[in-house]
Amino acid sequence: MSEKWIAGVDLGGTTTKLAFINLYGEIIHKWEISTDIANGGKNITTNIAKAIDQKLVELDQPKEKLLGIGMGAPGPVNLTTGVIYEAVNLGWKNEYPLKDLLEVETSLPAVIDNDANCAALGEMWKGAGNGAKDLVCVTLGTGVGGGVIANGDIVQGVNGAAGEIGHITSVITGGAPCNCGKTGCLETVASATGIVRLASEKLKGAEDKGELVDIFTRNGEITAKDVFEAATKQDPLAEEVVAEVAFHLGLVLASIANTLNPEKIVLGGGVSKAGDILLNSVQKHFVNHAFPRIAKSTQLALATLGNDAGVIGAAWLVKNKID
Amino acid sequence: MSEKWIAGVDLGGTTTKLAFINLYGEIIHKWEISTDIANGGKNITTNIAKAIDQKLVELDQPKEKLLGIGMGAPGPVNLTTGVIYEAVNLGWKNEYPLKDLLEVETSLPAVIDNDANCAALGEMWKGAGNGAKDLVCVTLGTGVGGGVIANGDIVQGVNGAAGEIGHITSVITGGAPCNCGKTGCLETVASATGIVRLASEKLKGAEDKGELVDIFTRNGEITAKDVFEAATKQDPLAEEVVAEVAFHLGLVLASIANTLNPEKIVLGGGVSKAGDILLNSVQKHFVNHAFPRIAKSTQLALATLGNDAGVIGAAWLVKNKID
Repeated sequence: MSEKWIAGVDLGGTTTKLAFINLYGEIIHKWEISTDIANGGKNITTNIAKAIDQKLVELDQPKEKLLGIGMGAPGPVNLTTGVIYEAVNLGWKNEYPLKDLLEVETSLPAVIDNDANCAALGEMWKGAGNGAKDLVCVTLGTGVGGGVIANGDIVQGVNGAAGEIGHITSVITGGAPCNCGKTGCLETVASATGIVRLASEKLKGAEDKGELVDIFTRNGEITAKDVFEAATKQDPLAEEVVAEVAFHLGLVLASIANTLNPEKIVLGGGVSKAGDILLNSVQKHFVNHAFPRIAKSTQLALATLGNDAGVIGAAWLVKNKID
Repeated sequence: MSEKWIAGVDLGGTTTKLAFINLYGEIIHKWEISTDIANGGKNITTNIAKAIDQKLVELDQPKEKLLGIGMGAPGPVNLTTGVIYEAVNLGWKNEYPLKDLLEVETSLPAVIDNDANCAALGEMWKGAGNGAKDLVCVTLGTGVGGGVIANGDIVQGVNGAAGEIGHITSVITGGAPCNCGKTGCLETVASATGIVRLASEKLKGAEDKGELVDIFTRNGEITAKDVFEAATKQDPLAEEVVAEVAFHLGLVLASIANTLNPEKIVLGGGVSKAGDILLNSVQKHFVNHAFPRIAKSTQLALATLGNDAGVIGAAWLVKNKID
């Protein structure tokens, strides 16, 4: 048959990323639309269907070119029913029947999964995972999310909540409050938000001059990126923050590795763009806390697909279903 | 066909447990032989083959009654090659070809896996797991071992070392040294050995009289069982030890649950015989450290198969292979 495509969709609270992807995981065409969360998010699936149809017309392709639609959605998903339990940022509540709605709107077979899981599948298929069948993907963004792949399949867990790596307790005593209601979650130190919080706390007490103090004085605020840039320039305060972040990440990733011994743990998301200054420091603490046989065999790596991981993983859902 | 049996074997450093088990997981006959670790463990597979043949004669059954042999072995296993990387307690080194030797000696198809994995499979099939396809089994014995089942299959990890739950760092600073070379592993506090260590440390500084002090004075030593019995009688020092053990177990099991959201986490091994006094206390700390959605859906339970979990899980390996 002539080459078929899959529509891969990565649904976010602000932007929806879309792509046509072939069966080799290559992106043929990608674009974005804004996510309309008005009226409890009821226009979202319609807008996606319209966007796909318009793009097909634009590319002069028939609907039959598409084998199906795969979507990563920001919330826990029931794979059997295709229901998303809730997606707070989109206004979807009470077991929203996302798969059924997508199929009705697009007239395509649909497969859905959680967005962090799709990112993990994308990295497994075409990214840093490089085909590894045992893979954990940790997304360090505004929050910290995770996707766990064991024996080649996503681990969903009994209630669709596997991969809540950001909520592993890392600061045992005196940890900061987390949005989830607990304290000391990894997310409170290793997300962009957590890094800014740690840096701000240290800035309050800082008497020394330095790169980070300068940035704060100049801009009235700091970002996670500022912290890593200042650390690269050996600013002591920024180095302290990076060391603290790396300690907790290394500790938690080692706990995960001691449980699963994955081939790779892939770090993605905005914070991971810090690159080697973060990875090398995390690696040191990882080795200190991983069982020796596991420290030798489980590798840490930076994600390579960036923002494309989600749409590629979403396309994989469809490919995996039809294979 | 008339009812067929599987030979299930749970190989330990001192004792080898054997059983004939039907395809419903029911034990028809079980017995033990001692494990001969002389000469680098070279007699072990021969002794098992003899024991099976003798028992068949004794029960007046032909060899054809057996579909195969499944074995749980005390070390990391390569499922593809049927090799055990090493089993220090048995004298086996350098990728010992266990599956091949078993097949040659017994003339039966053989399937092997790690003993902790077999215990987990046994509990999944016929025990506390009750068929749960996402299950973690933690064995609290002399050490702390673990078996992880996701999507109905054992997670082996890239180097056969998944499930090293006992070596998750739980005491972050000032932890006791562990046999693995790290410090502060869960095993240093939640194994029988760890519990005795914690109690002994507290006894050294104890000025108060009490149940545990009395036992120590009387016997010159204490056991993990003594600690739980004294705690049941509200001995404050024993209660302190149990609280510390339960805190660390609750913390680590919550980390595992936040990663995998299994339907159940089953506690087995000698220490788990403490029963509800341990489970209830662990549960409290588990809920404090688990992501709320996971605290609600992942259950903690006590193992129900006791010493039979290993042979039943070993039989499941064969059943799963032929199904």
